[in-house]
Amino acid sequence: MSEFERDTHVERIDDLRFKGLVDPGWNISVNPNGGYLLSIVSAAIAESVDHPDPLSFTAHYLRPGVPGVECEVIVDVVRQGRTLSTVRASLWQEGKQRVEIIAAYGDLSNRVGIDSDITIEMPRLPPPESCVARSGDIQGIDIPMINKLHVMMHPDQAIPGQSGVPEISGWIRFTDDREPDTRSLLLFCDTFPPSPFGKLGMIGWVPTIELTVHVRRRPAPGWILGRFRTDDLVDGRMIETGGLWDSTGALVADCRQIGLVLQKT
Amino acid sequence: MSEFERDTHVERIDDLRFKGLVDPGWNISVNPNGGYLLSIVSAAIAESVDHPDPLSFTAHYLRPGVPGVECEVIVDVVRQGRTLSTVRASLWQEGKQRVEIIAAYGDLSNRVGIDSDITIEMPRLPPPESCVARSGDIQGIDIPMINKLHVMMHPDQAIPGQSGVPEISGWIRFTDDREPDTRSLLLFCDTFPPSPFGKLGMIGWVPTIELTVHVRRRPAPGWILGRFRTDDLVDGRMIETGGLWDSTGALVADCRQIGLVLQKT
Repeated sequence: MSEFERDTHVERIDDLRFKGLVDPGWNISVNPNGGYLLSIVSAAIAESVDHPDPLSFTAHYLRPGVPGVECEVIVDVVRQGRTLSTVRASLWQEGKQRVEIIAAYGDLSNRVGIDSDITIEMPRLPPPESCVARSGDIQGIDIPMINKLHVMMHPDQAIPGQSGVPEISGWIRFTDDREPDTRSLLLFCDTFPPSPFGKLGMIGWVPTIELTVHVRRRPAPGWILGRFRTDDLVDGRMIETGGLWDSTGALVADCRQIGLVLQKT
Repeated sequence: MSEFERDTHVERIDDLRFKGLVDPGWNISVNPNGGYLLSIVSAAIAESVDHPDPLSFTAHYLRPGVPGVECEVIVDVVRQGRTLSTVRASLWQEGKQRVEIIAAYGDLSNRVGIDSDITIEMPRLPPPESCVARSGDIQGIDIPMINKLHVMMHPDQAIPGQSGVPEISGWIRFTDDREPDTRSLLLFCDTFPPSPFGKLGMIGWVPTIELTVHVRRRPAPGWILGRFRTDDLVDGRMIETGGLWDSTGALVADCRQIGLVLQKT
């Protein structure tokens, strides 16, 4: 069993409820990574709906998770249709809700309408071995999660503030070589450093309010390329838009989040 | 009272429930416009939370609404914090759920962190009087909603398939001159023709699965400019990204949806 499967494993309690454990190995500093928290929820949803692929997945982060502590996940199927399952879910620890999720699942192996050549081309990036590994040293914090995920940053963007552009790009894969699938793309959309750092340098904490991921295609094995840009930042509220491409160059997910860009205190 | 306030008016039944009416004047062909349905919900949310502005608003469209029929809206405040209210809501007609919503509300008059000049510039467009009014004739359907909203399309994009580019842009405002506010921006993000029409011509029905709007700034009075692009269309599933700018040129909302692009039958 891969580390990702093991650390997001949930056990069914009843029709609606599952229990799991928030493993401290996925922390960024003292808090569990948000993409890891939603992956525990996505494991419970996979046990609850008929369709395999998260076409649309929205997470609201209400409170930080608590590392090393059990969690409960509640999954409520809003509508189970022929081509789509719509589901609401939440993650709780110590009696408090941490994450609220709404998602639509479908089957990406089924064609449901018109096809086209409209897509977003994969950005050009040096190969992973010419990129710079994400490390806690660069950001000045401890990042246990880098033992679970290789994140290889574009060499011009590895140092916060160096590029002058609010963009972060790089390669990502699991350190135990588990291959990507549509569920792990949800995680990969929330595991790069915040894109405002590219222009503004190491500012403060950048908590996500809401993240939406659209999985577009099932990924081929190998590295996943991610690119994330800040579109708009005003009064401490930013919009970041991102995309993921697989080893064949196909767009496999896009994502957008609203986050806060707080002063370092 | 403006037509928008009148047609989205809701009356409280109890702590969680409101009742309203789906007015047939906001139809596109035989179905109520999706942006209109979520506006009935946004009216109920406004009565339920302390914060005035929808910072993040996600709607899943489960079934078409029924014009001319009463509706019930259920609002459930997930978390009421100091700077954010997170809320779930749903719209029901004839015993069936039509829309599921999750949203985070805040106060855009409060600065909560770092400011910057990062934004998306307003696209250049001919003035409204040089644009072409959206009409049912062009699309070959009846659009009662054009009596509620002026939608003035870029002259190069008014005819489906004419531009060869999957992009739609134009100006929008209420026909009764009600000025825009942050609540009406949610509506404006779902009232332009689908952007795939620009490249592919008048194809079939383009139902939205999920739409997320981020309101970025409170709009100045006057026309709102909208631009919407298809980023990716494969096997009948499209991602459309849009933005709204106010009469001062400021980005006031961005949005993204996943929709189906179905064959004309």
